[in-house]
Order: sequence, then C-alpha cells, then structure tokens
Amino acid sequence: MAIKMDLVGKVFDPVSFSYTWKDVVLYALGVGAKIDELDYLYEGRGPKVLPTFAVVPSFASLIDVVGRLQLNVMMVLHGEQGIRLHRAIPPSATLKTRSTIKGIYDKGKGALVAVECKTVDDKEEPVFDNTFSIFVRGEGGFGGDRGPEAEKVEAPEGKAPDFEVTEAIPAEQALLYRLGGGDLNPLHADPGFAKMAGFERPILHGLGTYGYAGRAVLRAACGGDAAKLRGFFARFSGAVVPGDTITTRGWKVGDQRYAVAVTNQAGKPVLTQGVADLA
Amino acid sequence: MAIKMDLVGKVFDPVSFSYTWKDVVLYALGVGAKIDELDYLYEGRGPKVLPTFAVVPSFASLIDVVGRLQLNVMMVLHGEQGIRLHRAIPPSATLKTRSTIKGIYDKGKGALVAVECKTVDDKEEPVFDNTFSIFVRGEGGFGGDRGPEAEKVEAPEGKAPDFEVTEAIPAEQALLYRLGGGDLNPLHADPGFAKMAGFERPILHGLGTYGYAGRAVLRAACGGDAAKLRGFFARFSGAVVPGDTITTRGWKVGDQRYAVAVTNQAGKPVLTQGVADLA
Repeated sequence: MAIKMDLVGKVFDPVSFSYTWKDVVLYALGVGAKIDELDYLYEGRGPKVLPTFAVVPSFASLIDVVGRLQLNVMMVLHGEQGIRLHRAIPPSATLKTRSTIKGIYDKGKGALVAVECKTVDDKEEPVFDNTFSIFVRGEGGFGGDRGPEAEKVEAPEGKAPDFEVTEAIPAEQALLYRLGGGDLNPLHADPGFAKMAGFERPILHGLGTYGYAGRAVLRAACGGDAAKLRGFFARFSGAVVPGDTITTRGWKVGDQRYAVAVTNQAGKPVLTQGVADLA
Repeated sequence: MAIKMDLVGKVFDPVSFSYTWKDVVLYALGVGAKIDELDYLYEGRGPKVLPTFAVVPSFASLIDVVGRLQLNVMMVLHGEQGIRLHRAIPPSATLKTRSTIKGIYDKGKGALVAVECKTVDDKEEPVFDNTFSIFVRGEGGFGGDRGPEAEKVEAPEGKAPDFEVTEAIPAEQALLYRLGGGDLNPLHADPGFAKMAGFERPILHGLGTYGYAGRAVLRAACGGDAAKLRGFFARFSGAVVPGDTITTRGWKVGDQRYAVAVTNQAGKPVLTQGVADLA
C-alpha cells in the first residue's frame, strides 16, 4: 500500500446498514450459538442480539474507509478488535456508522491501521463503537510512529481461571460466518488463496473467534444476559482453522472486569489481552 | 380449514423470487453441505446450485396459494415433494412461479393438498417444476376423493443398496435451514409450539431431510455433478429431530433411476417411496 498518512483523522461520509432478525440469527449461528441459546436464534424470543454483533453493521463502513488505502488483500490480517456498547442492540434497525482512521502505525514487520467506527441510530443516538485494527503484513519499516500500546490487562499468572468454555469449531464454520459477518475475504473460503497467503488451509475470521469468545463470556460471566456485556477487546495472536477446538478462559480482575484469553487444542494462544467489561 | 374445493384448478398470479449466491450457499449449509462440497459453498466456484434448491424460489408462491385455504398452521405437515429440473439452476436470478392447487384429497386422517408450481426465468423459459403435497391433520373425512396414488417405486426387498450415506444432523440445523429455506413455521424452532403440535421437540423441516437426501444422491450416484440429477420425489413418513443421524440408501432400479429411502438412527423410515431420476 501507499502509506496515505493524509487520510488519518479525516471523517468520511457515514455508511448505512439495515438488518433484520435473520441477519442477527445468521450471525449468532456463525459464531457457534447453540440450541440452548435459543433466545439468540429464534425471532419468537426477540431475538436477543449477541453484543459482538456490533462488528457487523460497522463492517461496510470499515471496508469503505480501508478501501481508500488500497491495501493488498492478500497481506491483510485482523490485528485487534474492541467494541463498546451504549445500549442493547436492536433485533432489526437501520444504523449509520462514521469511521475515522485514527492512525497508521509502523510495527516493523507490518503496518497497523487503527480505525474507529461510531454507530448511531436514526435519531443520531449512539448504539455502539468499534475499534478495528488491521495489520498489513510486509508494510512496516516506513519510519512511522509505533503507535500507542493497548492497555494491558493480563491474565494473572498461575491463577486458575474463573471460567473456562471449550467449543469445537465445525469445518464449515468460516463458510457460515462469512454469510452473516460481511467479510467475504477469500482467505476464509478459498484453499488456493489461503495457500498463496501463507496458510495451509482457509482460516476462520478473527471476528469469528472473537464472536465465540464473546459468547463464552456472555454465558459464563453474564448469565447469558446480553445487556451485561458492555465492552470487549482482544488481540488476534494466532489463526484458528475450522476443525480446531478452542477454549476461552476468564479471570475476574476487577469489580466488573474479566481478563480473557483463548487458546486452541494445542494450547497455542489465538486471542490474547482480552478484556471484558460488564455493566 | 374450510375445504375450498372451488380453488382447485385456479391459476393464481405468479410470484417472483430473487436470490443471490448467498441464498444458494445458505441453503446448501442448511441441508448439511460439507467442506468437501466447496463448489456448492463458495461463490468463487460459481457457486454450483444443489438441485433441491428448486424448492426455495417456489416456496413463496406455495405459501401464497396455500394461504388462501386458511389452514391451521399447527396441523400442517409436509406430505410429499417432487422436483423436476429443466436445466441447471442459476446461482443468482429472479424467477417467477405460477402455482395451481391440483387437488384437495380426503385421506381419512387428514386432507392432502397437492400444489403444482411451475417456475420460469425472465424469458418465460422453464427452469424447474415442483409438486408440494401438504398434509392437514384432522381435516379428512369430508367425503372427498382419495386422490391418485403416487407412482410406487419401491426399494427392492432384501437387496443391498447400491449406495448408502449416513449423516449426523446438528442440533441447530432446523434453525439454520429456516433462514435459507423460506419456511418459518415455528414448529421447527419453538419448543412450546412443537409440544402443542404434538412433538416432543422442534422437528427438522421435511424439506431439510429432503435436501440431505438429495445431496446424498448427488454425491453417491451423480459424482457430485448437479446437472445429472433431473428429478427427485419422496414421501415424508416420519419426523427427523435435529440431533438425529440419518442414512440415505439408493437402489438402481432402472437405467437412470434410483429408488431412495431414508431412515433415522433407530431404523425408522423418514423418507419413503423416493425416486431419483438421472440425466
């Protein structure tokens, strides 16, 4: 990519996104919601909306803004993701997202593009905010700022977690996630493309893993009540391949805060520096 | 229902249905397509369209016509289903379906409503035809005709099948099928509704089982080539509950014809009198 520093800080036109309960349910199935989470899977019960669905309505705006950087899609990975909810996400709505490139940072091996997306309803009332950090492999070393470090909330060393949720990811999960998640990058579907990008097989979307982890927090720390999960941040530290089994662990580190980490069946970290903030 | 015999034979206004590759893939996932059937799951390879997708674009027209009978949705079950393909189904299109109630038959325990749906493209060229037979429990005994018997193609007794495909149906499968299949009957999602309708738990759509069986025929008898499967008929003889494991068996009974039967893990028949016609 050309490092277009002049785009940093610009406010672009808002992007609208309309969705119905079907999109909400498709997303929930895409992040592995199970039959005993029926409130999130059946319109006759709302449906309730998983807090991590917040990434979906802002995704089109993210694509719009990141598109201006003319990134090589083959080299792009998701770096970090944060959501902050201002209230429960409605089961159907037309929402508007305004995105800003907060910074383009030089991480040595790559460039990190930090995008802030603020999403409002039709009365301009805030619904949720996202921070997407996109890692562009091979584009570091341009002499830029390394950028701010994320607030480090580490899992307490040697302490047993307060909760632990293990889930198997079906082999078709990325093909399902992409239908509802809005991210059609062929890295998650096309074996040839995945090989060219340096992976043995198509990998699960980082946001897919993020959604599984968010569900785990919701079940294990929020009693399944979507309104209790107000914020969730995590760093994508390793790829999940559909067919893997992942374990989400949480440690209570504050009054309303959990440190969260996700590993795969080999114990390899896939989500790190996770922080869940409860209401 | 009131037995509105005067509606039999009427030609109603055609109903349009537009779909994209996403609907095609969602349907394929809904009938259990696996990662090794990627041609049917990834737009970068078409996607190819499962022949049983033919039931989806005509479903809205079926609902329109059957709606005129004011059936008690609690008492409605799918009786039989047939498709006949005139050519490969396009991966995206706007198609038009004209439906006719061919007959309302008195089966004693219930009434059988037979609807024929003919689907054409924007040049009025035929793409496929469907025959939906809807069984309305408790509405028989009105002194009507029993109706024609379907052509009986029985599995040869005592003969080993020419193919056999066993698949586990995930517990969430009906919740996925209904998103793409167009049939939002709460019988397939709502535990309370299912109980009132006389089932222990929500059951899989008959057309869900039908899609699994069609995929099995496609893999085992057509080398995975959608163009080779030209027709598929079956009777719904028993409910499949998500969580079940079903086995589709096929017997070659003619040059281009297989008798097909599906049983569940207890050996109970769920699809009977199945006939697959190959090109």
